[in-house]
Amino acid sequence: MVYSEHGDPAQVLTAHEYDMREPADDEFLVRFLAAPINPADINQIEGVYPKRPSFSDKFGTALPSAVGGNEGLVEVIKAGRGGMSMTWSLGQWAIMRRTTFGTWRTHALVKADDLLPVPVPDVAGLDPVQVATVSVNPCTAYRMLRDFYPLRPGGWFVQNGANSAVGKSAVQMGRIWGLRSINIIRQRPGHEQVRDELYALGADIVLTDAELEDRAALKTLLRDQVDGPVKLALNCVGGSATMNLCRLLADGAHVVTYGAMAKQPLKVAASLLIFRDLHFHGFWVSPWNDAHPQERLDMLKQIFAWMKDGSFKSPEANVNHWGTGQTLAEFEEVFKKALADKSQKQVMAMHF
Amino acid sequence: MVYSEHGDPAQVLTAHEYDMREPADDEFLVRFLAAPINPADINQIEGVYPKRPSFSDKFGTALPSAVGGNEGLVEVIKAGRGGMSMTWSLGQWAIMRRTTFGTWRTHALVKADDLLPVPVPDVAGLDPVQVATVSVNPCTAYRMLRDFYPLRPGGWFVQNGANSAVGKSAVQMGRIWGLRSINIIRQRPGHEQVRDELYALGADIVLTDAELEDRAALKTLLRDQVDGPVKLALNCVGGSATMNLCRLLADGAHVVTYGAMAKQPLKVAASLLIFRDLHFHGFWVSPWNDAHPQERLDMLKQIFAWMKDGSFKSPEANVNHWGTGQTLAEFEEVFKKALADKSQKQVMAMHF
Repeated sequence: MVYSEHGDPAQVLTAHEYDMREPADDEFLVRFLAAPINPADINQIEGVYPKRPSFSDKFGTALPSAVGGNEGLVEVIKAGRGGMSMTWSLGQWAIMRRTTFGTWRTHALVKADDLLPVPVPDVAGLDPVQVATVSVNPCTAYRMLRDFYPLRPGGWFVQNGANSAVGKSAVQMGRIWGLRSINIIRQRPGHEQVRDELYALGADIVLTDAELEDRAALKTLLRDQVDGPVKLALNCVGGSATMNLCRLLADGAHVVTYGAMAKQPLKVAASLLIFRDLHFHGFWVSPWNDAHPQERLDMLKQIFAWMKDGSFKSPEANVNHWGTGQTLAEFEEVFKKALADKSQKQVMAMHF
Repeated sequence: MVYSEHGDPAQVLTAHEYDMREPADDEFLVRFLAAPINPADINQIEGVYPKRPSFSDKFGTALPSAVGGNEGLVEVIKAGRGGMSMTWSLGQWAIMRRTTFGTWRTHALVKADDLLPVPVPDVAGLDPVQVATVSVNPCTAYRMLRDFYPLRPGGWFVQNGANSAVGKSAVQMGRIWGLRSINIIRQRPGHEQVRDELYALGADIVLTDAELEDRAALKTLLRDQVDGPVKLALNCVGGSATMNLCRLLADGAHVVTYGAMAKQPLKVAASLLIFRDLHFHGFWVSPWNDAHPQERLDMLKQIFAWMKDGSFKSPEANVNHWGTGQTLAEFEEVFKKALADKSQKQVMAMHF
């Protein structure tokens, strides 16, 4: 799926097919196993995301173009004459080392440096869709829980948008690390089911945004059920929801913002900063990855180990299939249907 | 000046006189030399400030009462039978160790622990009004420049409300430490004079809030005159002014809020947090003082040394006088006139 100008992805993306040359000496041919459609991918195509791929003529398109998508899982299927290094083999699974590679495709020629081998001795038992979606949302949750306030086992954090892929990752990691979580979800049809799902993942408390407005009930809850200061908040909503979130926080707490679902600036009363000593930060996984290659690898090893032993699941996604026999028009149709369905996270699974 | 209920200071404050007993064994009698009227003092009487004195019957008022004011300079004029310790002497100058003591008065009975001796070997050459106003505004500027980002000589910071007492302190400390400052002031009648005054104190760049709105001019300014990243911002305005301030900042900068002159919550775009990695904090000097007694003393020593060698001046204030011969009604009149005059910082000077 390529685009040659920024704009509405449904308009500017088209399916494109071209004959791929043989891998050069230092290249591998890989096939994609799975790639998600993340909100940041959309923003990137719209041109409102700070990191963008450059348009290139290497795909044989009429105008220079870029492939959409940033996250994905590949399998190495052919090596250039340089052959396999000690650390690579045919059948090797790997994820993207950097953003902007372009992952909404079936095959690609890559250099070793483009990839990060999936750091487990054996991928048996790992679901490609799970593995393909590990490096953005679960890694974002992981870093936010680790790098802004030193929570110890038993320590509390709170998050809004708890039903997001990051939110569900944070609930599970919190459970694994012995942290306690308060989770805010939207009060809308079906929220009871969302609540149950979060409790099943290991949430300690789930509240709707409407319940959060009831100050008396909130006070009772904090007194009776929260046995320690809430020192960390994960925020993906913005607007005045941020102030509501802050009602749950202890003095000196840290609020980490990773999204702005409300599409409004955060409203932050100066008294929260001055008298309650709250600290506001943001987190963006892409530059973090670039700056911390070894810590990233350690983190991925840990997450894949959890996946293998069943203690962690990448948040569920709707899987859309690309496979042998489909026409180019069918590829595009499947993709654009997935793109239009905002009801849940969408992942492309490729079968070649 | 005492009050027995929270409310509008002009309404609830009254001048009160009472016969003071002799100092107990572990007490001193002090006379006040000077005490400022700070915005926080007003908020405290209104009941909207987090720290309040408790109402007491020790002043002989009809209802339990508290004395207004938190900052001030005293001279020790009499000791209880315990006499002077090695570290105290008659004539000793001292400031308040804690907030809520009540400083809008002529005399008080205190214990040694209530006071912090002015840490200079000789107070000759020090102006009581300057010394009385050092512990809130200059100390706030000092800590904000020191504790949130490690600026080195040549490093840049930016502040809005630069004409405030904190702002003028920050300009001077910046000059002393070799830091470079960008100072935002309001574009209103007389701003040219304010600009000149800030340049005279050592400001590197002074901009009006209107000039800050001109993005093209701002870009030119940053390119041509600011020879390094601006990593620290001091914010006392709030509302959307905060976002304007952020236009001057480098990625990863820290914004410290110490006031909210606009009386509006800060508006913070999530992109500033996520993509530009800005960090937002607050600073409140009272709990800092309580938590860092030794560092506070070191800081005061440094500031008093600067005052003695003429390199630093507490921001100028309008001085209102209380003296022998005035009636109680005249005390109240002088005080309330000062309270009503918001055109500049007001300090009471006591002559007894």
